Amino acid sequence: MLDTTLRDGEQMPGVSLTPSEKLDLARDLDAAGVPLVEAGSACTSEGEREGIRRVANAGLDATVTSFARGVRADVDSALDCGVDGINLVVPASDRHVETKVGSDRDAVVERTADLVAYAKDHGLWVEVLGEDGSRADLDYLERLMGAGLDAGADRVCYCDTVGAAGPERTREVVSRLAELGPTSLHTHDDLGFGMTNVHAGLRAGADTVHATVNGVGERAGNVALEEVAVALDRVYDVETVDLTGLYDLCRAVADATGVALPPNKAVCGANAFAHESGIHTDGTLKDGAMYEPYPPETVGRERRLVLGKHAGRAGVSAALSEHGVEATDDELDAVVERVKDLGDRGKRVTDADLLAIAEDVQGRDRDRHVELVDLSATSGSGLPTASVRLRVGDDERVASGTGAGPVDAAVEAVRTALPDDGDLAAFDLDAYHVDAITGGTDAVVTVAVDLSHGDRSVSVEASDADITRASVAAMVDALDRLADAPVDERTAAAD
Amino acid sequence: MLDTTLRDGEQMPGVSLTPSEKLDLARDLDAAGVPLVEAGSACTSEGEREGIRRVANAGLDATVTSFARGVRADVDSALDCGVDGINLVVPASDRHVETKVGSDRDAVVERTADLVAYAKDHGLWVEVLGEDGSRADLDYLERLMGAGLDAGADRVCYCDTVGAAGPERTREVVSRLAELGPTSLHTHDDLGFGMTNVHAGLRAGADTVHATVNGVGERAGNVALEEVAVALDRVYDVETVDLTGLYDLCRAVADATGVALPPNKAVCGANAFAHESGIHTDGTLKDGAMYEPYPPETVGRERRLVLGKHAGRAGVSAALSEHGVEATDDELDAVVERVKDLGDRGKRVTDADLLAIAEDVQGRDRDRHVELVDLSATSGSGLPTASVRLRVGDDERVASGTGAGPVDAAVEAVRTALPDDGDLAAFDLDAYHVDAITGGTDAVVTVAVDLSHGDRSVSVEASDADITRASVAAMVDALDRLADAPVDERTAAAD
Repeated sequence: MLDTTLRDGEQMPGVSLTPSEKLDLARDLDAAGVPLVEAGSACTSEGEREGIRRVANAGLDATVTSFARGVRADVDSALDCGVDGINLVVPASDRHVETKVGSDRDAVVERTADLVAYAKDHGLWVEVLGEDGSRADLDYLERLMGAGLDAGADRVCYCDTVGAAGPERTREVVSRLAELGPTSLHTHDDLGFGMTNVHAGLRAGADTVHATVNGVGERAGNVALEEVAVALDRVYDVETVDLTGLYDLCRAVADATGVALPPNKAVCGANAFAHESGIHTDGTLKDGAMYEPYPPETVGRERRLVLGKHAGRAGVSAALSEHGVEATDDELDAVVERVKDLGDRGKRVTDADLLAIAEDVQGRDRDRHVELVDLSATSGSGLPTASVRLRVGDDERVASGTGAGPVDAAVEAVRTALPDDGDLAAFDLDAYHVDAITGGTDAVVTVAVDLSHGDRSVSVEASDADITRASVAAMVDALDRLADAPVDERTAAAD
Repeated sequence: MLDTTLRDGEQMPGVSLTPSEKLDLARDLDAAGVPLVEAGSACTSEGEREGIRRVANAGLDATVTSFARGVRADVDSALDCGVDGINLVVPASDRHVETKVGSDRDAVVERTADLVAYAKDHGLWVEVLGEDGSRADLDYLERLMGAGLDAGADRVCYCDTVGAAGPERTREVVSRLAELGPTSLHTHDDLGFGMTNVHAGLRAGADTVHATVNGVGERAGNVALEEVAVALDRVYDVETVDLTGLYDLCRAVADATGVALPPNKAVCGANAFAHESGIHTDGTLKDGAMYEPYPPETVGRERRLVLGKHAGRAGVSAALSEHGVEATDDELDAVVERVKDLGDRGKRVTDADLLAIAEDVQGRDRDRHVELVDLSATSGSGLPTASVRLRVGDDERVASGTGAGPVDAAVEAVRTALPDDGDLAAFDLDAYHVDAITGGTDAVVTVAVDLSHGDRSVSVEASDADITRASVAAMVDALDRLADAPVDERTAAAD
């Protein structure tokens, strides 16, 4: 496996990694056992060279490489960064040879051989990439790659640079290249064939895959490292990298690149091990493997059950139990009906929603412990400031706070307004999430918070066109729920 | 192609479609030429049945179906909705037969045959899905599916329900089923093999693919309809649905489900036809096909060039020309250097950034036309209100506004503060986007706005822990740029 998150991944529009981010990610990749780390493209800029230098000098077990175009200056830039090797890209298709580089086939072959010899003379490990190889004339590609190997290259790479090939073409080309020498696969997902071509190429004799974490990269991205690693392990019993750290690795790359993990992404998406539908939840509660291809712990994750319009009795019952609520069969039916009804109206069903429904169904009276009476938040050129009036039990409590922005100030005010004698003020804000806002400045914003206190946690969502109001409403509702003793304790106290 | 966006897609945790959303999407799918539309699962809830009913009664060309578990009540629910057919799911693997349903193989075969006969008697088109078929005993699966076909089913479906199979297993199972009768493929992407298994299954004799738009669905999702459609067209010259409307279809599903399109998603992601790196931009400007597998117009899109740390001369020059800025070779080199430097520091390079750099490099003095002097925004329990003080030319102008939230109020105040005599106040806010916020309430928020005025448009980003401040800063910077006459007009005026 060669990881090119720091090179092809970083070429994704809008993504830019600082030298220290590159170093951190390279260390994570190395710790996961990735044998080859392409750290960047030394010709790009001084900042890029600084990043590559730091990775090259970090004492990693991995072989650290730089991308280099087929010109001497690029090889020199790579050498200057102290890398172990280069990924030397030379044009392979006529479109690239003639239109892009303005050269001809013979000249490219000659220059490639010269550059490989030059790089080998300077002690580099060399992989020759035939750019746009999947669209190249196969006889010429064979000649070009063969010249690279004859000049001393350590391996050649089949590049489906624009993600245009199907697996039949991949098999045809790779089987020819693999006859010449060790062959890597560099695939893109423009047709959704990124993995399919990896499979076809490995079957045809390739032995190494270029991949990026989370499949970041140009256009539709590269094949995803975590998917290749898990698929090879689960289906073919082929070990590549350490699987148990994959989720953390994916999150680190998402944080550094700013490219969020799609919920429906294999291995690392929020839903990869989540179940909502009644059928799936019921089955999963009976046997974890019922609706999962492999246990979430394999990649360092946990299973998650979610409620919504497809909810069933088993899932709702399990969720109620988590909050210490017991229900009769009839009550459970009624709660399920109400949960599905809420889901029908397009809403995600949170812990707070479920508990409110259960109280209503069971006819349990419940006084709110914490309630928002008044909120005011100011921001702009001055220091963001907020004040709140909360009703906590029978008291009204007022407090103000400042913060990085109006939401932050309001949260500080809420925390300050909570009584000192209880310990509720010691709550943890485990997660604060606002969905991306698109449309207009009057779009309704949905804020989701997870609050915990001791060993209890509760999730709440609130929506409002005012992000401050939504954030505080969600937080106060969550605090109100946390202030609730679990039902079983209350029952015990009443006995 | 069978689209199951409205059924398996909607089972994605957190996703819920209202009846009218289902109807709108079903019409879009029908217009794209999808022959089979699975509208939902009639057993789920009354709201769900209402949605299925509306789709079934919309007079679509497509065959409209409902999902039904292997029980009479589900078939009756589907009949009650007036659908054309059902996707009848029965347990196929022993794990599902025994642990989940608590039945045995013989009983399942018998019940399946009875239900198929019952459904056919009621005039339904029937597809039998062997749930978890990829993990089933193949001899038993063959017997079960054969019993369904003998009882009159129109087709059977190979279900890789948990996304656990590799293409070898898919080929083995599908080749056996396809001997029995028409066979569909239902694949999931848990191992990243969703498309790979579609390819293997079609090669093994299947003739229909179950897919969802954007690959929404349980866990890692289903195979993506737009990827299957484009890959079959481009690589195999097999026509399935109308490609030119695919991008609009993907956006409609993203809007209705609330599941954003990942930037690096094939066909519909923001980057699918975007190019940032100098090598790619230069090549693309010479020949659009250089770094694209097919023209963006194929799926109803346009190419996009983006600036960042990997920028090169060709791309920067093209971007400057769009804003009417001409530069000498030396100036261009200097601008490229500065653009890359900004990108190096992890920043996306917007139009405003590029123009500011060009002015600086060319030593052009420029007075700001519009500048933010003071901003105050209040929100909370009362009406969100904001005031701004702008410097517009030589005047200071003060205005206030109200809105749905503090950002909306501030934008209204900015618009009001602009002079009546110019027509700048007639600007359009074409796009307002805030990246998803995760982490804490003090996270830095990045706001991107596109403003246009007449035939000029400008993109600006601003980041701040205060979302109101970031939004107004971006907007005022964009207005300042729009107030600028293009350089060529200014030059003409000076002559």
